[in-house]
Amino acid sequence: MDLLPTHVTRYESNRAERVRITAKSPWTHVWTEWTAKIWGGGAARTSSDALGAPGSWWLEVLVMFCSAKTGGSLAVWREERESGSPRIEPPGAVSPAKRQIKEVKETKTTINCVTFPLPGEGPEQQLLKPDEWSYCDYFWADKKDPQGATSLPGFEVLLQKQLKGKQMQKEMSEFVHERIKIEEEYAKNLSKLSLSPLAAQEEGTLGEAWTQLKKSLHDEAEVHLKFANKLHTEVEKPLLTFRGDNFKKDLKKYDHHIADLRKQLASRFASVEKARKALADRQKDLDLKTQQLEVKLSNKTEEDIKKARRKSTQAGDDLMRCVDLYNQTQSKWFEEMVTTNMELEKLEVERIEWIQQHLRQYTTLRHETDMFNQSTVEPVDQLLQNVDPSKDRELWVKENKTGDVRPVDMDI
Amino acid sequence: MDLLPTHVTRYESNRAERVRITAKSPWTHVWTEWTAKIWGGGAARTSSDALGAPGSWWLEVLVMFCSAKTGGSLAVWREERESGSPRIEPPGAVSPAKRQIKEVKETKTTINCVTFPLPGEGPEQQLLKPDEWSYCDYFWADKKDPQGATSLPGFEVLLQKQLKGKQMQKEMSEFVHERIKIEEEYAKNLSKLSLSPLAAQEEGTLGEAWTQLKKSLHDEAEVHLKFANKLHTEVEKPLLTFRGDNFKKDLKKYDHHIADLRKQLASRFASVEKARKALADRQKDLDLKTQQLEVKLSNKTEEDIKKARRKSTQAGDDLMRCVDLYNQTQSKWFEEMVTTNMELEKLEVERIEWIQQHLRQYTTLRHETDMFNQSTVEPVDQLLQNVDPSKDRELWVKENKTGDVRPVDMDI
Repeated sequence: MDLLPTHVTRYESNRAERVRITAKSPWTHVWTEWTAKIWGGGAARTSSDALGAPGSWWLEVLVMFCSAKTGGSLAVWREERESGSPRIEPPGAVSPAKRQIKEVKETKTTINCVTFPLPGEGPEQQLLKPDEWSYCDYFWADKKDPQGATSLPGFEVLLQKQLKGKQMQKEMSEFVHERIKIEEEYAKNLSKLSLSPLAAQEEGTLGEAWTQLKKSLHDEAEVHLKFANKLHTEVEKPLLTFRGDNFKKDLKKYDHHIADLRKQLASRFASVEKARKALADRQKDLDLKTQQLEVKLSNKTEEDIKKARRKSTQAGDDLMRCVDLYNQTQSKWFEEMVTTNMELEKLEVERIEWIQQHLRQYTTLRHETDMFNQSTVEPVDQLLQNVDPSKDRELWVKENKTGDVRPVDMDI
Repeated sequence: MDLLPTHVTRYESNRAERVRITAKSPWTHVWTEWTAKIWGGGAARTSSDALGAPGSWWLEVLVMFCSAKTGGSLAVWREERESGSPRIEPPGAVSPAKRQIKEVKETKTTINCVTFPLPGEGPEQQLLKPDEWSYCDYFWADKKDPQGATSLPGFEVLLQKQLKGKQMQKEMSEFVHERIKIEEEYAKNLSKLSLSPLAAQEEGTLGEAWTQLKKSLHDEAEVHLKFANKLHTEVEKPLLTFRGDNFKKDLKKYDHHIADLRKQLASRFASVEKARKALADRQKDLDLKTQQLEVKLSNKTEEDIKKARRKSTQAGDDLMRCVDLYNQTQSKWFEEMVTTNMELEKLEVERIEWIQQHLRQYTTLRHETDMFNQSTVEPVDQLLQNVDPSKDRELWVKENKTGDVRPVDMDI
C-alpha cells in the first residue's frame, strides 16, 4: 500500500509554513487532501527559517492518515528542494506491522534530552552570527568529561569562564598590591637615606649641590609613594571591586534559570519516551488483532479492532502532544540560551575592555612616575652646574681666615 | 740734642733702596753724612716693594750714629711721602738714659715668633692675589683657640681642610653605597614579583598583555641593577679611591716641612730676644758710666767709657746679625707658606671639580635609568593597544566550544 503524496504545495498561513498534501489512504484507498504545519529543521523559532535557508531546504512532513476517523498511520515524507525529487519513505510496504517508526530513517538524535540533527542530515545550519565566533553559536552540545560519563552543559562552560574572569581580576589586583608594597618599601628606604648626615659638612656650592642630591632621594621617594597611592586607587582597588558580589549572584541566577529549563526539557523528554512506548504498545496490539482477524484466528470482532484502533489513535495524539510540548520547551530553552549567552558574551567583552583600560592606567602611571622621577634630578644638575671652586674658596676663606696681614721684617 | 736729619735723599744701589742722610751727631755735634740701607715695611722680600707702593710710602730709617767710631745711638726717622713733613721722633731729648729702644714707637709686633705690622702702621699691604680669596693671602696669623692659650697656625687650618675633604669623599662614597643597596633590593623584589603566577590563566590578547606587564617588572629590575652596577663602578668606587693613601702622606710632608720652618723661626726669635737684652744691658752700662764721668762721680777714665762703648757697639752688631738671620728665616718660611698654600688651594680646586664631575655622573646615570625604565613600559602599551575582545573570543571559543550544531525540533 503506497502512501505517496502526489502533490505537495507550500504556502504560508499565520506566519507558518504549511503544506497541502494529497495522498491516498492505505485503508480506504481514497485520496484525501489536507494541510499540515511544517516542523522545520534549523532554528526552531519559526519553520520558515529553515525553509528560508538559501541553497536548499528540506521538509519533513508528518502525515497522519485518518480514514473516516478509524485509525491512522504515520508516514514521513521528505523533500529536498534542490534534489528535486522527493525522497519518500513508504511506510510499512508489506505489512502493517512494519508500519512502525523504525522504518523512518534516523535523521536526528537526542543527547541528554536535547535533539540535534545527525551529521549530514538536514539542511546546512548557518551560524546565527557568522564571523563573530559568538557564544550563541558554539555551545549547544554538552561537554563530555574525558574520563567519566558526566558532562557539562555548554552554558556551564561559558558561566565558568565568567567566574574565572572574576578570579583573574582578583589575582591582578593582588599583583598590583604586591607592586605597591615594593614601591612603598623603596620609598621608605630612599627617604631614610636622604636624611643621612654623611658629608653634611661639605660647604659652599659643592655642599649645596650635595645637600640637594641627598634631598633628591626624598623627592624620588615622594614620587614613588605617589605612584603607589595612585596604583592603589586607580588600579588595585577598582580591579578588586569591579563587579562586586552582585556579579556572582547574577551569574547564579542565569545558571539556575538555564538549568531549570534543562530540567523541564528532561521532564518533557521523559514524557515523550513514555508516550512513544505507549503508542508502540498500542500499535503492536492493533497489528496483532488485525492479523488475527485476517487469518480468522480468533473470535475478535470488528468491534475489538475499532477499539484497538481508537486506542492507537489516542496514543498517537498523546505522543503528538508530548512531542509538541517537548519542542516548545526546547524552543524556550533555545531562546533563553541565545539571550543569556549573548549576555555572557557581552560581559566578557566588557571585562576585557575594563581590564585593558585599567592596565593602561597602570602604564600611564608608570610613564608619569618615570617623568616625575627625572624631574627630581634637575635641581641637582642645576646646582652641580653652579659648583664653583673659586666661590667656595671665597666663602670658606671668609669664614676661616686667620689673618691677612703678612709678616714683615723685624726691626732692630 | 736734636737729631734732625736735614736731608734725606733716596737712591738705588745694588737693587736696594738706600738713603743718604745728613745729621748732626749728638756727641760731637758734628754734621755727618752717610748712607743707610732701607729696611722697608710691606713685603720683606725687597724694601723697594714698600717704597714702590702707589699712593704713599713710608720710610723708616734706622740711623746709627757713629761719631769717630766712638759709639752710637739710635734714632728713627720716618717719612711719609704724601704728608710731606717728616715725623721725627727725637731720641732721648734730655738724657742719654732715655736713648733706649723704648723711645722708638712700636709699629710692629711679634706674635708666636712671627712679626707683623701693627694695625694702621706701615704701608697698606696689597693682596698677593687680589679678588681671588687665595689661601696665600689669608692665613698668616695663627688661629686662636677660643678657650685656651694654644693656637693653630693658619697653615694647619688649610691642611685640616684637605684632610676633611678626604673624609667628605669617603662619606659620599658610603652614601652612594647605601643607594646601591636600596636599588639592588628594589630590583630583587621586582624580579621576584615578575615571576608571580597570578592571573597566569588569562588568555588571548589580554593574557599576552598581562604576561608582558609582569615581564616588564623584570625589565625594570634589570634597569635598576644596571644602575646599581654603574653607580658602583663610576661613582662609589672612584669616590672611595680618589687620592689614595699617598695623599695623606703628601699632606704630612707639607705639614712637617712648614712646621720645621716655624721651629727654626722660633729659635731665631729666641736669639734676637737674647741679643736685644744683651744690648740693653750694655747700653745701660755705657749710660751709667757716661753720667758718672759727667758728674765726676768716680775715677772712671775715658778709657773705661771707650770700652763700654765698644761692648755696646758689639752688642748692637750681634743684635743686627740676629735680626738679619731672623728675617731671612721668616722670608724662607714666607716663601714656603706661599708655595705650599697655593698647592693646597690647587688641591682643593681639584677636589671640588673632581667631586662635581662624579656627582654629575650620578645624575647622568639617574637620567639614563629613568629613560630605560620608561622604555620597559612600551611593549606593555603596545600589547594593551592590541587587546581585542573579539579576537580573544575567537581564540577561546575555538579552544572550548562544545558544539555548533543547533538543536532541532524532535520528530514524532
